[in-house]
Amino acid sequence: MRTTDAPLVMSLGDPCGIGPELAAKAWTSLRDQAGLAFCVIGDARLMAAQGVPVMPVADVSETNAHFADALPVLDRPLSAPAVAGQPDGVHAPFIIDWIRTGAELCLGGRARALITCPIAKSVLYATGFRFPGHTEYLADLCRKGNVVPTPVMMLTAKDLRVVLATIHTPLSAVPATLSIAGLVELARITNAALIKDFAIAAPRLVMAGLNPHAGEEGTLGREEIDILASALNQLQNESINIQGPFPADTLFHDEARTAYDAALCMYHDQGLIPLKTLDFWGGVNITLGLPIVRTSPDHGTGFNIAGKGIARVDSLLAAIRAADEISRNRAAA
Amino acid sequence: MRTTDAPLVMSLGDPCGIGPELAAKAWTSLRDQAGLAFCVIGDARLMAAQGVPVMPVADVSETNAHFADALPVLDRPLSAPAVAGQPDGVHAPFIIDWIRTGAELCLGGRARALITCPIAKSVLYATGFRFPGHTEYLADLCRKGNVVPTPVMMLTAKDLRVVLATIHTPLSAVPATLSIAGLVELARITNAALIKDFAIAAPRLVMAGLNPHAGEEGTLGREEIDILASALNQLQNESINIQGPFPADTLFHDEARTAYDAALCMYHDQGLIPLKTLDFWGGVNITLGLPIVRTSPDHGTGFNIAGKGIARVDSLLAAIRAADEISRNRAAA
Repeated sequence: MRTTDAPLVMSLGDPCGIGPELAAKAWTSLRDQAGLAFCVIGDARLMAAQGVPVMPVADVSETNAHFADALPVLDRPLSAPAVAGQPDGVHAPFIIDWIRTGAELCLGGRARALITCPIAKSVLYATGFRFPGHTEYLADLCRKGNVVPTPVMMLTAKDLRVVLATIHTPLSAVPATLSIAGLVELARITNAALIKDFAIAAPRLVMAGLNPHAGEEGTLGREEIDILASALNQLQNESINIQGPFPADTLFHDEARTAYDAALCMYHDQGLIPLKTLDFWGGVNITLGLPIVRTSPDHGTGFNIAGKGIARVDSLLAAIRAADEISRNRAAA
Repeated sequence: MRTTDAPLVMSLGDPCGIGPELAAKAWTSLRDQAGLAFCVIGDARLMAAQGVPVMPVADVSETNAHFADALPVLDRPLSAPAVAGQPDGVHAPFIIDWIRTGAELCLGGRARALITCPIAKSVLYATGFRFPGHTEYLADLCRKGNVVPTPVMMLTAKDLRVVLATIHTPLSAVPATLSIAGLVELARITNAALIKDFAIAAPRLVMAGLNPHAGEEGTLGREEIDILASALNQLQNESINIQGPFPADTLFHDEARTAYDAALCMYHDQGLIPLKTLDFWGGVNITLGLPIVRTSPDHGTGFNIAGKGIARVDSLLAAIRAADEISRNRAAA
């Protein structure tokens, strides 16, 4: 089996959230598109309860054969029924197993990409799960000996790609968290991924400033001079095409976005505000820097709307398409 | 003369920037629209050099009579020639005089609104100008005895209005700059202006959180709990319709913007990123909370492009239209 013949796999995420209904909706949308065939890793009975035909498979290699007729599920059943909207720690070991299984299938070349449905960290922490989230757990699953790859979270929507120098950091802690080395590593991983994962031969990066007007020569903050400029200088010496720091409010309008392939943002909302302003429902989270391809929708578990059938599938569909595209680009590289 | 018959006035700003060419372009665009007649306060010879017919006037009440044929200018000539792109401190007293004259005409009811073209603070500081910018200087000009009104900077573009709790504050200083009293005052002035200046009978305000996910119950920062929630509570007790704090990245897409009339943002880029992402060229800066109506384009002096004829007039045109609309709303109230 060539890599591009291997199926996509999807970990079901928290079974009490919107993952199961979105997986079913995604299959309904995509069943006619053989190139996007995916196999759910989760509970087959729960999936059958979503009102779509389900085909339990013993091996993900069966995915392509069944996808047009039924949603393939690698059945790893829960020990107790999942109730929509009522998260329960009893499911935690299964949620974690689904993710691990998906990663291992990708590492073994039997799946070409992993799409992860949302998890709630608080549910997993109770069982001793020690990672801040999916991304760090997957990086650990990809370790070789003591070497854990550094994952980078990229978010995309429409024609915008952003990567974040800090993510779930309180705003007051952001300035002290930024470092020259961290920004350099962020840009290097992003640049490499744009080449390998997005097939962009000569990537163009931009870096947003931290302060208003990018500090205005240091009068509105010095991080641009003390940290960002040094990182830019080092990266340019490595022949990475990166410009900045630019005032963040000048980087995201239609014309500005044509000038670069990815923007390095200093904090969560600096990247997420423009992304979600441009496309609130269709954003995708892509993990760069790992040996496996992993994407996910950019929303959470949606416990408050789970089971009502109102969750929008746009983001999961975009995540599936991104996983497909990236894995094909990697196979062709 | 009824207030709505009084003309708009426009201070020319730095004569070495793009103000003169934009004023000329604006007149060319609007000369057929009598309701938007404006008089420039500045140097008539400099304006004539912009390639438009100029009519020096002794009194701004002559504006309406001439506007269709020539650009009315209340001539306050410079003492030395202004060279595009080469700012010079010798012009500073004139730049300041043009602003003061415009404000005084508005305060006296002889003009109905002031549009200010951009200034460069560094040029003015050399002469002892002691204000951070236009806005604070105008507030001081509007003082009654020792009472200086509190100005609020609102920025608008398309259907979005934002006001800023902090403006030209380094990001690292933003959290400590926020206060309950400051947010309460910001919301009160904004609410009053939406009623009086924008003719919105029952304004709906929202407040953005400071931290990612608006702090996620305090796990990603405590300002929402310690400061923002208290301000919201106080405002709601005054029957001001304000909701929040909301994750900033959820507030600015098309659907979200239909739910409120103005968003209170905690820092410069939180408000300016969505505004300039949605409409980079057409933003307007409106000063709320003053007895006079004042608007301005949301760009700077553009010394690097001045005199080349390439500056875009979108923002100044939008500022003129906003000044017109607000002054009419105030007159009708």
